[in-house]
Amino acid sequence: MNFRANTENAGEWLRGAGPLADVVISSRVRLARNLAGLPFVAKANRRQRYEVLESCRSQILAKPLSANTLFVHLNDATALDRQLLVERHLISRQHGASKNDVPRAVAVGSEETFAIMVNEEDHLRIQVLRSGMQLDDAFGQINGIDDMLEEKLEYAYSRRFGYLTACPTNVGTGIRVSVMLHLPALQLTGEIDKVKRAARDMHLAVRGMFGEGSDAQGDLYQVSNQTTLGKSEEEILADFGQTVVPQIVNYERQARQALVRDRGPQLDDKIWRAWGTLTHARVISTKEVLSLLSHVRLGVNLGRIEGIDIRTLNELFLLIQPAHLQRLSEEEMNPAARRIARARLIRQRLGG
Amino acid sequence: MNFRANTENAGEWLRGAGPLADVVISSRVRLARNLAGLPFVAKANRRQRYEVLESCRSQILAKPLSANTLFVHLNDATALDRQLLVERHLISRQHGASKNDVPRAVAVGSEETFAIMVNEEDHLRIQVLRSGMQLDDAFGQINGIDDMLEEKLEYAYSRRFGYLTACPTNVGTGIRVSVMLHLPALQLTGEIDKVKRAARDMHLAVRGMFGEGSDAQGDLYQVSNQTTLGKSEEEILADFGQTVVPQIVNYERQARQALVRDRGPQLDDKIWRAWGTLTHARVISTKEVLSLLSHVRLGVNLGRIEGIDIRTLNELFLLIQPAHLQRLSEEEMNPAARRIARARLIRQRLGG
Repeated sequence: MNFRANTENAGEWLRGAGPLADVVISSRVRLARNLAGLPFVAKANRRQRYEVLESCRSQILAKPLSANTLFVHLNDATALDRQLLVERHLISRQHGASKNDVPRAVAVGSEETFAIMVNEEDHLRIQVLRSGMQLDDAFGQINGIDDMLEEKLEYAYSRRFGYLTACPTNVGTGIRVSVMLHLPALQLTGEIDKVKRAARDMHLAVRGMFGEGSDAQGDLYQVSNQTTLGKSEEEILADFGQTVVPQIVNYERQARQALVRDRGPQLDDKIWRAWGTLTHARVISTKEVLSLLSHVRLGVNLGRIEGIDIRTLNELFLLIQPAHLQRLSEEEMNPAARRIARARLIRQRLGG
Repeated sequence: MNFRANTENAGEWLRGAGPLADVVISSRVRLARNLAGLPFVAKANRRQRYEVLESCRSQILAKPLSANTLFVHLNDATALDRQLLVERHLISRQHGASKNDVPRAVAVGSEETFAIMVNEEDHLRIQVLRSGMQLDDAFGQINGIDDMLEEKLEYAYSRRFGYLTACPTNVGTGIRVSVMLHLPALQLTGEIDKVKRAARDMHLAVRGMFGEGSDAQGDLYQVSNQTTLGKSEEEILADFGQTVVPQIVNYERQARQALVRDRGPQLDDKIWRAWGTLTHARVISTKEVLSLLSHVRLGVNLGRIEGIDIRTLNELFLLIQPAHLQRLSEEEMNPAARRIARARLIRQRLGG
């Protein structure tokens, strides 16, 4: 596979810039689409699945979708490569899992601004990822991709229901919008559970950084809309992007100011100890790193610690994970060896 | 009180030098003496206690015991000053406690190589403290002091029992020899309890860094002889200094080598994290500092971390304690304020 572990020319969403970037790490729009005249992936036979794969592949690689699109047949990829793509948020955990009965693939656009999974739960899952709060831009780009694919692919569509999808929760627009939020202050003040409950009352899903079933590590939460039926894409976007997310961002900012005001020394202590540990540890787990990076990131955003680049921190969130670490080190490592290599990498990147 | 919190020209035993200094922080010899013809402190009346104090004071301050001996009447000293002397290991906790019924004092020799408590449990408690394993030198010095005091003071002495003391455990030679040992590796490998049991079987007392009733903080243990009757001072010294202590030192060194051999990365991790936390924390308790200093000291002694002066670490063991911290900061502080001042002092001293 041609996919590199380093993030030098990739991961636009890692920039740490864009509107509300102190809280909103990235914005993501995803569309679920299926080809007309062919069964959903789970119901399709081998031949039909190959037919889906081939139709999608040729259309995805047709210009002008992207000049440098990388197309990866996942059944030909190593377990490490698949894990790399999962860690990079380019495929879902399920899509990266070891199962050889379904021919499946992913297309990754240049700078990783878009990724298209083929034969995941639906024939096509298109995602666009941007740094900061840029749902409208992401929506614009994904619409362009959707239109180009539709030029030659006929989608399964019902006048009554809209786009047809394998899971009923996606029927209709087939759109899911989500943001990755960094909520360390709500975590530290203990208000995070209140916010989670409120989000669920608004029919939002709140998950960890790797989507469904994953824990919230590093105080990173993926918040997304749940309903795709009965509202237009524009309504969903407006409601989510202009009301819901800014409200959560506001809660987090208020919690940060409360920490600065009421618990300044304890806050600084947490931030600086995190920095001290990251730059000095010799053995460290992914989970601990994510927690420490979270506190340092909070410190940078609040101006309590200076001279640290947010992009460097964002990249570390990815690079310290098992597959990235092994690819960067150019060797397979057991968990004990990884904990040592991880600590070394962090010191190199942070100048410890 | 004229006693300074800084340790620039004081605390010879803080040098971190002397034989076996990788494990033996300091050597201490103590003599218990009482004046003939006067009751023990607990049994004496007010007038008799003053008589003891005055006799001892004039003899202690007579040349040539020490040119710059500081004589402190503890009932005239502030609570902070008394605590400072306790933290400095110049008086016992009991002697520094708040009680005004007994006129009590301490004489501190230049460089703090000796201290003489008056009206503690016995009329006189003489101690000499040296860095590293220097019991013989300490014994030589304390004998000199003892002889000079005896020129004019008549000690309570029995041909049958030897020196008479308030507590029967001190009767006889009245000598107690002890060493302060740094045993982090025995702690980390879990062998410390075995060593403690063995020490008790040999009739040794094993205590924390502030003597009786104190916990072992910072992996510092004060080991001392228990019996003073039936053996000559020379026998006690030879047995303790040439057999017992070198044996414990050997156990600790073996444990250190085992850590280096079997758990190198974990050892380095502990050492470097301790350093990272000491140089970055903003709020820190005495207990945590002692534990972290212990690991850094181990790292320096094993050559796993460089460019750090052992004396600086040894001094911090003292300076971060409540009374020293307040004296250095020139203000009284509540515990919360001390935790902040303590973190600041450590960063200043270690260049964090």
